[in-house]
Amino acid sequence: MLRTHTCGELRLTDAGKQVTLCGWVQRVRDMGAMAFIDLRDRYGITQLFLDKDPKKSFSAKLTTIGREYVLQVTGTVKERESKNLNMPTGEVEIIVSEFEILNESETPPFTIEEHTDGGDDLRMKYRYLDLRRANVRANLQLRHKVAQQTRTFLDSKEFIEVETPVLIKSTPEGARDFVVPSRMNKGEFYALPQSPQTFKQLLMVSGFDRYYQIVKCFRDEDLRADRQPEFTQIDCEMSFVEQEDVLNMFEGLVKHLFKNVKGIDIKELPRITYADAMKQYGSDKPDTRFEMKFVELNEVVKGKNFKVFDEAELVVGICAKGCAEYTRKQLDELTDFVKRPQIGATGLVYARVNADGSIKSSVDKFYDEAALRQWAEAFNTQPGDLILVLAGKADKTRKALNELRLELGSRLGLRDKNTFSCLWVVDFPLLEFNEEEGRYFAMHHPFTAPKPDDIHLLDENKLGEVRANAYDMVINGVEIGGGSVRIFNKELQGKMFGILGFTEEEAQKQFGFLMNAFQYGAPPHAGIAFGFDRLCSLFGGADSIRDFIAFPKNNSGRDTMIDAPSTIDSKQIRDLGIEVL
Amino acid sequence: MLRTHTCGELRLTDAGKQVTLCGWVQRVRDMGAMAFIDLRDRYGITQLFLDKDPKKSFSAKLTTIGREYVLQVTGTVKERESKNLNMPTGEVEIIVSEFEILNESETPPFTIEEHTDGGDDLRMKYRYLDLRRANVRANLQLRHKVAQQTRTFLDSKEFIEVETPVLIKSTPEGARDFVVPSRMNKGEFYALPQSPQTFKQLLMVSGFDRYYQIVKCFRDEDLRADRQPEFTQIDCEMSFVEQEDVLNMFEGLVKHLFKNVKGIDIKELPRITYADAMKQYGSDKPDTRFEMKFVELNEVVKGKNFKVFDEAELVVGICAKGCAEYTRKQLDELTDFVKRPQIGATGLVYARVNADGSIKSSVDKFYDEAALRQWAEAFNTQPGDLILVLAGKADKTRKALNELRLELGSRLGLRDKNTFSCLWVVDFPLLEFNEEEGRYFAMHHPFTAPKPDDIHLLDENKLGEVRANAYDMVINGVEIGGGSVRIFNKELQGKMFGILGFTEEEAQKQFGFLMNAFQYGAPPHAGIAFGFDRLCSLFGGADSIRDFIAFPKNNSGRDTMIDAPSTIDSKQIRDLGIEVL
Repeated sequence: MLRTHTCGELRLTDAGKQVTLCGWVQRVRDMGAMAFIDLRDRYGITQLFLDKDPKKSFSAKLTTIGREYVLQVTGTVKERESKNLNMPTGEVEIIVSEFEILNESETPPFTIEEHTDGGDDLRMKYRYLDLRRANVRANLQLRHKVAQQTRTFLDSKEFIEVETPVLIKSTPEGARDFVVPSRMNKGEFYALPQSPQTFKQLLMVSGFDRYYQIVKCFRDEDLRADRQPEFTQIDCEMSFVEQEDVLNMFEGLVKHLFKNVKGIDIKELPRITYADAMKQYGSDKPDTRFEMKFVELNEVVKGKNFKVFDEAELVVGICAKGCAEYTRKQLDELTDFVKRPQIGATGLVYARVNADGSIKSSVDKFYDEAALRQWAEAFNTQPGDLILVLAGKADKTRKALNELRLELGSRLGLRDKNTFSCLWVVDFPLLEFNEEEGRYFAMHHPFTAPKPDDIHLLDENKLGEVRANAYDMVINGVEIGGGSVRIFNKELQGKMFGILGFTEEEAQKQFGFLMNAFQYGAPPHAGIAFGFDRLCSLFGGADSIRDFIAFPKNNSGRDTMIDAPSTIDSKQIRDLGIEVL
Repeated sequence: MLRTHTCGELRLTDAGKQVTLCGWVQRVRDMGAMAFIDLRDRYGITQLFLDKDPKKSFSAKLTTIGREYVLQVTGTVKERESKNLNMPTGEVEIIVSEFEILNESETPPFTIEEHTDGGDDLRMKYRYLDLRRANVRANLQLRHKVAQQTRTFLDSKEFIEVETPVLIKSTPEGARDFVVPSRMNKGEFYALPQSPQTFKQLLMVSGFDRYYQIVKCFRDEDLRADRQPEFTQIDCEMSFVEQEDVLNMFEGLVKHLFKNVKGIDIKELPRITYADAMKQYGSDKPDTRFEMKFVELNEVVKGKNFKVFDEAELVVGICAKGCAEYTRKQLDELTDFVKRPQIGATGLVYARVNADGSIKSSVDKFYDEAALRQWAEAFNTQPGDLILVLAGKADKTRKALNELRLELGSRLGLRDKNTFSCLWVVDFPLLEFNEEEGRYFAMHHPFTAPKPDDIHLLDENKLGEVRANAYDMVINGVEIGGGSVRIFNKELQGKMFGILGFTEEEAQKQFGFLMNAFQYGAPPHAGIAFGFDRLCSLFGGADSIRDFIAFPKNNSGRDTMIDAPSTIDSKQIRDLGIEVL
């Protein structure tokens, strides 16, 4: 080893020891006859003291070094005169006796500090320098720990980690696949997996009964903010279980992770049906760090000649506690917020419950004090509360109110990143009607089992009413994991493919192997997958997944550091039996 | 849970318990008034006893079930009358009271037993059934354990697992890349990594100092037997280390794995230089489970008018202990063996050291007893030994003798799969001359550092003599891991690219990001990668890696189970900006 210690481990108790450290120059303070250097490595920063006595061989070298030079220094640990108690090594310094420059460095294009002066593009281009920053490094260390603890938990539950293939077969259902032209089978392509879904189901058919994998998945989508073309999943499947078993097992995983990564005890996860989530929060991933549930007002507000409400399918509102004194400007901001095209409400009605108990609304013309008193009762308000109401088509209005609720939550500081609220959303619809294509799509995927009680609806042409044994784990308003009980019966699977518009031939071509496998004794099984990047960023208290991925791609799917994708040799292209248009 | 216990856990101490099991029907023995079923799951097999009393509801179902049906049974654990002590559950059976068929099964195309009647092709097409066989399942369980123990060890040494990207940039050096056309950047391609080499080096530049990953890699090669287009590596890199540190660290890993996976204590690994390995074994991956080192005979055999030896660059032989009584037929077989085109020797000379001490050779015409006595001395033979000698061009002869040595080792039972002999081969040549292309190639890869003592040879045009700080770990004649100290200096790296025939522009296009990174303070670093599939098959005592991969591909790169690669939709191809020729 070129070092005896790291830059993070020396303490007062080491005083007097001769040590050798290696690391990068964080800072040089030249004081004339002497100099201080902060030497940094993965483990911390240690202060070096250099006496610039010209007889010392290193005094000449000293003048040349700059930020990010790589040094190897030997010296004696000494108690500092002026201690820095903000850093673990802050009580000591090294009196340097030998000094070697292992490598030089150009001046980096941005500062290697927590609050760097580098913008996003520059940081990504020089990601190898960005990763030197303590906070970015900490993100990846956190990721390592989450992976480690995930494995510890699942290993303890007899899950087997099985690697499924990356070069698989393209399936037209769902998002677009990345494909790989086959040189040995010209005109044919592999696809990169969007998830190991069918393989993990085959492993269940094989009797592997508890499978997991922390696995890369791929999706060739136009990247929305914070989507990556390659992403990582914690992918799991179990046999001989019912939904309840899966929920309990993975509630256990999440509790284990919070406990062992964050030191937080999570209580039993509440469960809410999809229908209730939509009704109470207007979202299938409600942020339950704060209450502010929806209150439906149709019965309270209709018939008072206020056309907007009278004609609305749904009048629904929320109560913002203690916001009665919002200024006109603040209320206008909220109105503008809900009227933004991406939210699309036509207006916002409010009612202030004043400190003296009186109520004033923006629709006083239609609703007198007694009528408004009914509103207040519906919301169970207290003096000082503000009621905000939207009206219109039910689905759209709920969605808009969800956005308003979240906005208010943020404004009121109710969405603290260090508070965690987890829940299960259950009983998702099996199918979702796509207006554009005029047909039903699987809400999760084609392998999700309908609730046994609802199977008859499949034959009664009530497809939209069929509920699935499907579940999502939601934390702080983010879908962290999702899964379902699977169909394990060939006939039912065939029927599902039919409903989803596959001809028998297409179903056979795409999923024949799975349907064949189901002929040979498939066990009842169910599973779940967690978005690993998202889970890490949630644990790290960040909004973006990008800084929890070592080498992420930008919104055009480019790695600007290595400049990929890139053109390739024309011979290489020809050898693949393809041509670039 | 649909079960209370697994089929592997019930013992005599459980007698009297009411239990529910789930599993697959391994075997039904219908005895008329009663029946026995062997029920199988991942954990074992448990015997079920069914009283076919017609009043019991399950007696009708019983007649329909066959092999591989999925059952759920409830009953009472009872001591067996005739115990089977060969299986852990063999002292008990379940007296079944309830019985449910969870799923039916067609008759599988081959028997689900250790020695199946299914051929390779059938097994691969129905891999999901093949994986039900206890021995195949055991291979994947072993793989899980090797991965787990690898992580345990490396985690304990402060290595961080970092995921490197799968969609990277194509590099023309080395094997052929799989490429992925980019839809968002038409005309451009990602490549799938042959190894995360440059990324792990960048992580060292980033200060991550100890990195590992168990990672999928890809190589689009014409598949030789037992090569897979996608394979898994244990990939590692360390900073601020010298070769010695890397050897010690990963010797530690391998000892840990042998201890914790196989229960075997491995002694300190011997080290041999590449030059010595070639001289003593004719191979850079010698099988050291047995001795039989090469003995060079030029000085002993020349000048006796035997033209073959006189004209040979090298005369070299091995001593097969106790084989003096090989029959004419056996010796002919060995001669035919070395004369096979892929080995290419022109003939085989032998000398028997008889029990009475006399020596008879196949070249008695040229070598009298006294001359042969000299041979015997060179080999330090004992009565009963057989000397086998090849002659010709040095390199080719050594390679042929290596094959003969291995063949003899096999014939003599010296290559027991449960014996493990590990060693390091060090001081590999940096460069390797390719006759066809008329230029030098990197023996490991372009990032390998020459030995400091040999750097001057780079400028003296003695490229073939430059040794590298490169090392392989060899176990039982198989290269299990390999790595090197890396170049961490931009100038030296540039010089290497030049020697390897890159123009400055090409080097910049392909590896500019690495050379740029080296400008900003790259630390001294070194690393290694282990072939994970191979390591698992070695631990499993198998020759082929295929059965240690859940879903392998065949020699044409096809997954015959899912039928991939396959044609894809023409619109999908057009969207990628390419065309199939």
